[in-house]
Amino acid sequence: MKIFILRLGHRISRDQRISTHCGLVSRAFGANGIVYSGEKDQSLLDSVEEVAKTWGGKFRVSYEKDWKKFIKKWKGKVVHLTVYGMPIQEKIEDIEKSKDDLLIVIGGEKVPPEIYKLADWNISITNQPHSEIAALAIFLDKLFKGGELYKRFAEGTIRVEPEERGKKVVRK
Amino acid sequence: MKIFILRLGHRISRDQRISTHCGLVSRAFGANGIVYSGEKDQSLLDSVEEVAKTWGGKFRVSYEKDWKKFIKKWKGKVVHLTVYGMPIQEKIEDIEKSKDDLLIVIGGEKVPPEIYKLADWNISITNQPHSEIAALAIFLDKLFKGGELYKRFAEGTIRVEPEERGKKVVRK
Repeated sequence: MKIFILRLGHRISRDQRISTHCGLVSRAFGANGIVYSGEKDQSLLDSVEEVAKTWGGKFRVSYEKDWKKFIKKWKGKVVHLTVYGMPIQEKIEDIEKSKDDLLIVIGGEKVPPEIYKLADWNISITNQPHSEIAALAIFLDKLFKGGELYKRFAEGTIRVEPEERGKKVVRK
Repeated sequence: MKIFILRLGHRISRDQRISTHCGLVSRAFGANGIVYSGEKDQSLLDSVEEVAKTWGGKFRVSYEKDWKKFIKKWKGKVVHLTVYGMPIQEKIEDIEKSKDDLLIVIGGEKVPPEIYKLADWNISITNQPHSEIAALAIFLDKLFKGGELYKRFAEGTIRVEPEERGKKVVRK
């Protein structure tokens, strides 16, 4: 089961840090890759790829201008995370059961209305306004049942050794 | 058990959106309030307060210039979320057991080294680089065992009614 994130509506002037966090969360919480749409931002793609290279694991970063076409071509299921959707706790079992590849769509400030129809599930993580970064992390954590917290990343050049107090970085 | 978030090192020029997300996640995931430190940013405080007022619940937003003094005066335990800390899955039971009020410290890009000593626990949510927003959401979700997803917010003027497809906003 492959899991990709589609981040809609990136704007170079406003979203660089938020979109970077989306990419890093996707990777750290066990997704296979992220696809950015909106304005093409090479430095965003480069910076997420650089982290993936340095810290290891296989993680794909790419850009798609036509997000609608990308969703329609996706062979598998589509989840759209939105404050308006059905509570994750009511739907996560159905989503797990499908066993298909999964595309998780997260929006920026304004989301095109078509996405509500294109998605197999519109899912909310609380029906309160907060953050697509938090929604994505919680969704992946529930999907993997916390297993992503134990994930090992191969082939990086750097890793952290957990410490009670202090910073231990191991360079390989 | 009261739970507050302390967000360190806010910079007006770079962090407005990330810091806003930290505030909204704190509220949506059931904390009692957030305290910002770093540069004083009245529009940040106002915008998080405005969401709390509109969407309901009791949530306190404030600013503290001297974060070190604030931590030292805190009557309760202190958790610092950091990529270098001990895995949450190994420590969450100890933290729950303490029953004391809890201050959750999240940093920006550079965190002052003293915080590692001032905290009762330095906790990581994966030892991979990602996002303080995601770390905070996962920490609160594990602390509340998912119960925050069912939280109701009283006294707001607006709420969302979950829908399979579409947007249903109820104005009270």
